[in-house]
Amino acid sequence: MSTRAFAAHSATTPLAPFSFARREPLATDVQIEILYCGVCHSDLHQARNEWSEFAGTVYPCVPGHEIVGRVTKVGKDVKKFKAGDFAAVGCMVDSCRTCPSCSRGLEQYCNHFPTLTYNGQDKRSGGVTYGGYSESIVVDEAFTLKVSDKANLAAVAPLLCAGITTYSPLRHWGAGPGKKVGIVGLGGLGHMGVKFARAFGAHVVLFTTSPNKIEDGKRLGAHEVVVSKNAADMAKHASSFDFVLDAVSAEHDINAYLSLLKLDGTLCLVGAPEKPLPVAAFNLLMPRRQFAGSAIGGIAETQEMLDFCAERGITSDVELIPIQKINEAYDRLLKGDVKYRFVIDMASLKQAA
Amino acid sequence: MSTRAFAAHSATTPLAPFSFARREPLATDVQIEILYCGVCHSDLHQARNEWSEFAGTVYPCVPGHEIVGRVTKVGKDVKKFKAGDFAAVGCMVDSCRTCPSCSRGLEQYCNHFPTLTYNGQDKRSGGVTYGGYSESIVVDEAFTLKVSDKANLAAVAPLLCAGITTYSPLRHWGAGPGKKVGIVGLGGLGHMGVKFARAFGAHVVLFTTSPNKIEDGKRLGAHEVVVSKNAADMAKHASSFDFVLDAVSAEHDINAYLSLLKLDGTLCLVGAPEKPLPVAAFNLLMPRRQFAGSAIGGIAETQEMLDFCAERGITSDVELIPIQKINEAYDRLLKGDVKYRFVIDMASLKQAA
Repeated sequence: MSTRAFAAHSATTPLAPFSFARREPLATDVQIEILYCGVCHSDLHQARNEWSEFAGTVYPCVPGHEIVGRVTKVGKDVKKFKAGDFAAVGCMVDSCRTCPSCSRGLEQYCNHFPTLTYNGQDKRSGGVTYGGYSESIVVDEAFTLKVSDKANLAAVAPLLCAGITTYSPLRHWGAGPGKKVGIVGLGGLGHMGVKFARAFGAHVVLFTTSPNKIEDGKRLGAHEVVVSKNAADMAKHASSFDFVLDAVSAEHDINAYLSLLKLDGTLCLVGAPEKPLPVAAFNLLMPRRQFAGSAIGGIAETQEMLDFCAERGITSDVELIPIQKINEAYDRLLKGDVKYRFVIDMASLKQAA
Repeated sequence: MSTRAFAAHSATTPLAPFSFARREPLATDVQIEILYCGVCHSDLHQARNEWSEFAGTVYPCVPGHEIVGRVTKVGKDVKKFKAGDFAAVGCMVDSCRTCPSCSRGLEQYCNHFPTLTYNGQDKRSGGVTYGGYSESIVVDEAFTLKVSDKANLAAVAPLLCAGITTYSPLRHWGAGPGKKVGIVGLGGLGHMGVKFARAFGAHVVLFTTSPNKIEDGKRLGAHEVVVSKNAADMAKHASSFDFVLDAVSAEHDINAYLSLLKLDGTLCLVGAPEKPLPVAAFNLLMPRRQFAGSAIGGIAETQEMLDFCAERGITSDVELIPIQKINEAYDRLLKGDVKYRFVIDMASLKQAA
């Protein structure tokens, strides 16, 4: 099926209209008309080939892995969905399904690497996978999520990456009542981290470089907001955190945040800065601390997160844009000029054609 | 009591004879005639003021925190020791004893910082603490360890730092049957790490830069020895380790070892390289991994380790030296030319006077 989309055609040119063919749904596939797609910092990294060492970009590249839409057709063996249902797709569309990680429901850590929603090796159709900056997508039902029909679908879209990426580590490291939890950076990921940490019952401290985000941080759920450029304020929190979620993808001083951890506390990185982060050994030794990372979440946990959000009325704070503004949105993303996630209204794609 | 010792008088001069006064034993103090003192890489770092940012050296500095000796006098309230007993002192001689870390028996992570055996602030006598390159020491019994009278005391001395520094993280992160454990570096710490990991029942893989250490690594207990300069051999072990203990205090590529960890595996640093270690974010994210540090062990765990070693016949492989050879020993230490720990025979100090 011919599918309209926007694609990066090289690392240095703006995204532009593109057409390609999606497969007809196979027996276990779900075909989804995409209504909304969130704009993740990863989209920009990948479009501009900034992760070339780890995952070089194949052009044309259709980004987008925060996908919400309506089911238009299902394969004959599909049980979870029928035409007309709302459905969502996140960062993965497949995995080996048999390795120890997949068997534990941690498909994101598949020992053979999951098939990413874009710029992945498409095991079904061959070639490279194309993401959500497009009018439709076809995904195996095992990697398709159910979405409440009551939610604001545009504001649900970012949960598929920004949401699960913060939800999973906060759950894994036990953020909850009695725990002091820091969130570093108030962007797409950080603002979801604040909402989740607060919803889980932790004492939440937001760290931001921008004094003008203090009020917003509190509105989103932070009990305290610390401007990280203020050394005296940082020092007050030394060695006091159980867990810090670092959601900054730009270069930054990780040692300043490691020193906030108490004995056996963990700092978890969910952004992926391009350059290595210098870690001072003493910051890990005295006292014993852990520097960790976490990537999205498994399919079962993503569904759990979507259900939790539906129950608690949690969504992302979004700015809706037409796809024609995607290049401008990337520029604004780099300046941190978005509260807190751009979401593409896919109706605009039809107008473009 | 006037006490003979060897001290660093500046960062750039060789260690030389020095005399100072030890206090008379207070009510809970144990006075120990030092028989053997191990030579730790920390001694050299501190003598040369190489940790100036973290712990600037006060001169004269008497290093030494792997101390084994015989009790010569005890204070009136001492219960654990009597004159004639063997006793040991490690890296700490006191702590606040009341903070949450101390209450958990983790005095090494005392929230108010423990009193280190040398170059620490002496809360009892005032001034700076002087370590084990001396003929005697006076320590509160709460920070004095019991030593089996059956062991080779010279080979027991390094257990007080090299031993507990490797024992504690291997226990904390559950090295044992069914676990694949890596030890990086075959030096004073590393050779104890190999012995303990093997004794705990783990599958032990030693990583070394020196092909000529393969045979010795196996003799010490490693099931496999990998020469870390061989990229193909390293690649064979990618994402397969539950735990890696990194005992290298020189600059080295930490990413090569992070990538050896399986999902939820931990790399623990016990050496303290001077310069920050660059960590590539993707190595922590995909899959979820942890980079941690650990410093020595608490007093109760140190006693547990000494008892475990006495029961299993575990000691350090040592080269005994007279104190007059300490500067030469430092030079050889920097070249890695010792199998695997220098220990000073303190009888030599009496001859020097």
